[in-house]
Amino acid sequence: MTEHRDSAVRSASTQLSEQGAPDAPVPERRRFLAKGGALAGALATFGLAEHSLAQSGTAAGAETANLPPNVPPWTKQLGEPTASPYGKPSRFETRAVRNLYPGLTEPMSAYSTTPLQELDGIITPNGLFYERHHAGVPQVDPAQHRLMIHGLVQKPLVFTVDELRQFPSESHIYFMECSGNPSFLPPWGKTAAEVAGLVSCAEWTGVPLKTVLQEVGVDPAAEWIIAEGADGAAMTRSIPISKCMDDVLLVYSQNGERLRPEQGYPLRLFVPGYEGNTHIKWLRRLHVVKQAGYTREETAKYTDLMDDGRARKFSFIMECKSIITHPSGTHKLTRKGKHEMRGIAWSGRGRIAHVDVSVDGGNTWTEAQLQQPVLNKALTAFRAPFEWNGEELTLMSRAVDETGYVQPTLEQLTAVRGQVSFYHNNSIQPWKVDANGEVTNGRA
Amino acid sequence: MTEHRDSAVRSASTQLSEQGAPDAPVPERRRFLAKGGALAGALATFGLAEHSLAQSGTAAGAETANLPPNVPPWTKQLGEPTASPYGKPSRFETRAVRNLYPGLTEPMSAYSTTPLQELDGIITPNGLFYERHHAGVPQVDPAQHRLMIHGLVQKPLVFTVDELRQFPSESHIYFMECSGNPSFLPPWGKTAAEVAGLVSCAEWTGVPLKTVLQEVGVDPAAEWIIAEGADGAAMTRSIPISKCMDDVLLVYSQNGERLRPEQGYPLRLFVPGYEGNTHIKWLRRLHVVKQAGYTREETAKYTDLMDDGRARKFSFIMECKSIITHPSGTHKLTRKGKHEMRGIAWSGRGRIAHVDVSVDGGNTWTEAQLQQPVLNKALTAFRAPFEWNGEELTLMSRAVDETGYVQPTLEQLTAVRGQVSFYHNNSIQPWKVDANGEVTNGRA
Repeated sequence: MTEHRDSAVRSASTQLSEQGAPDAPVPERRRFLAKGGALAGALATFGLAEHSLAQSGTAAGAETANLPPNVPPWTKQLGEPTASPYGKPSRFETRAVRNLYPGLTEPMSAYSTTPLQELDGIITPNGLFYERHHAGVPQVDPAQHRLMIHGLVQKPLVFTVDELRQFPSESHIYFMECSGNPSFLPPWGKTAAEVAGLVSCAEWTGVPLKTVLQEVGVDPAAEWIIAEGADGAAMTRSIPISKCMDDVLLVYSQNGERLRPEQGYPLRLFVPGYEGNTHIKWLRRLHVVKQAGYTREETAKYTDLMDDGRARKFSFIMECKSIITHPSGTHKLTRKGKHEMRGIAWSGRGRIAHVDVSVDGGNTWTEAQLQQPVLNKALTAFRAPFEWNGEELTLMSRAVDETGYVQPTLEQLTAVRGQVSFYHNNSIQPWKVDANGEVTNGRA
Repeated sequence: MTEHRDSAVRSASTQLSEQGAPDAPVPERRRFLAKGGALAGALATFGLAEHSLAQSGTAAGAETANLPPNVPPWTKQLGEPTASPYGKPSRFETRAVRNLYPGLTEPMSAYSTTPLQELDGIITPNGLFYERHHAGVPQVDPAQHRLMIHGLVQKPLVFTVDELRQFPSESHIYFMECSGNPSFLPPWGKTAAEVAGLVSCAEWTGVPLKTVLQEVGVDPAAEWIIAEGADGAAMTRSIPISKCMDDVLLVYSQNGERLRPEQGYPLRLFVPGYEGNTHIKWLRRLHVVKQAGYTREETAKYTDLMDDGRARKFSFIMECKSIITHPSGTHKLTRKGKHEMRGIAWSGRGRIAHVDVSVDGGNTWTEAQLQQPVLNKALTAFRAPFEWNGEELTLMSRAVDETGYVQPTLEQLTAVRGQVSFYHNNSIQPWKVDANGEVTNGRA
């Protein structure tokens, strides 16, 4: 305790915790208060030091042992060498990982979620981008990989990845989301990752599909393209030709670097705004045809069953949605007063127009601030201040996109979709804050 | 060779290489040509199949053995399991790594470069973000880390990282660049990474410094803030208070996840548009003062020496710059015809207004296309078509920012700066294309 008494600077937390500390350096504390003026006044702008610092429970010695003019242990030695060829997160970041769906142990046809409750902003780092595989992750040699385009075309062609990289390219920041994010079936999940961790966002670079289709010359009779992956499941989906001639990309890079294996290395289809399983990974074939393929993954799977036993015929577009990620399930508010609510919103139909938030379960709403720029079919980060003073709260966010579509409640959605639907649950997610500040799923 | 003959689809490369292949499946080729119509006409839109496919040199059998209806080896088996907790690049991506400055072996006070020639778009993945350390990379425990703000303030305070995360936050996509990227001294480097790999770009999230300064209450007499890192070098720089009250951030996240150790985990200063060494990593102290610190890193180092022996007093802002990354040194054009030139531009003063490109060493210029949206103090990707038909070319890019500043040639810059300057070389980078298509540094 000797060294830190030499410091003229005392933290507010130290001061407050000193009140119960027998060896508290009272003279310094008095000097600090005298110099600082009205503590409450200065700190009332956000209230942090009055509350969370007081609750940190750290003894005065520990609080200040590493403060200037003292030095922490890592300042007294050399660090690790420069130039790790490829960097990785801090060993302290143990919660920022992808996890399998809780309870699921079969890792080949499975998914893992992005830890939304640990992340900030709109870019998902590639190492945490969500995964969904139907036969595991093939390790494809890019030198051997080919894309074949055939069917109703003037000139069927085969391309190497290097050749595709020579076409004029584009980059776009787009979200991608699994159609079952989440499903309509309980259990609802505890964390934001468990509730909606099958959405991520990255900057994608590739060739517009329409450019390559101009090379092969599409027959006017063509109405669909059936895309096939090179994985063990030969994942296959049909895409309308109108979408293919619009904004679909043949993607080879994600967030600057080449696609990761689990994202389709060395080549994937990217279908902006469409459900994730249409973005065929390890793309090896585009079959230009008159009629959709009605493949397994668009008939037996990935269709929305209706109450009368029939299924909706194709439901490609991921409708407007949002989720509060901070605070969210398993988080805890550690002090009363002002907080910032943070979350993400997105729409497969374009830009987010605005996001409203509520602390009273949807009785009243206020508009959140959107992180600029708001991009087409990208995650949009939103932020809003709120206060918590020990009462129960139910936090909600409700996104509206540029088409005017309003994110529905679960009740509104099931009233239209019926009771047996599985995919495309874009309903409002409630989070409960209890009297202790514990945050849990308001739907559980 | 039997199986692939069953395929009705033949690639253009196969056809062209078949001309010299004794076992070429001629009937299929004829069928293809008959069906396809005028080969030259259909492919003239970009010319890829006429050229690069012909030069691939791959035998017809290898070209098509993996094509539908045949299947490559990875389609015949299950892949690797879903849910790597934290993903990594494909094992085939061996060139997309950070490297130390060639010839430098001491890894503690050193830098490593972003492999610009391997990347696309504007986001640098965290694993490849450039590094510069003065005493290696400390492994800081975020629970023990503190930020102290003191000096000319009403209320000196100490913050934990968790407390800083409770303030209202912002996210911005900003570039960061070392002031010696590159220096004015030869050797000039072979690759884009060696020439300008000390620039990267990410989405940064943190607290505006002005918000926290409002908590501590800055004395009107304050004119500078001296920022100190917790590394073994105690890296220390002075920042004008006007900049601190403008757009400086206390950053804890980069591209969504928490900062990597080599980027200052758990907390760094981010000073948009300023030279990289002012963005103090492992930030532990902000000393609010009347006069700049004139620390080692802003007097003996990181100043620009003039011919008369004096040095420019502070040169914070990274001026407007650009570089062509594709094709660039060590790349090779493998076919004649149309190509796409790709690169990045940036300015510490704001947005890029436009980028001009030249293939004749700066005699004539044409305007490149800018990737939208063009963001304030972020990398801006540019693209432009060009043709190469076996002649020598000198490729150049020249960026202009929204203030009207034009990126200078090396000659223009040294005419102003003199012959002994080291830092802040933002001059135009020439790349030579020789008769074989080999690309080398036009300055070497």
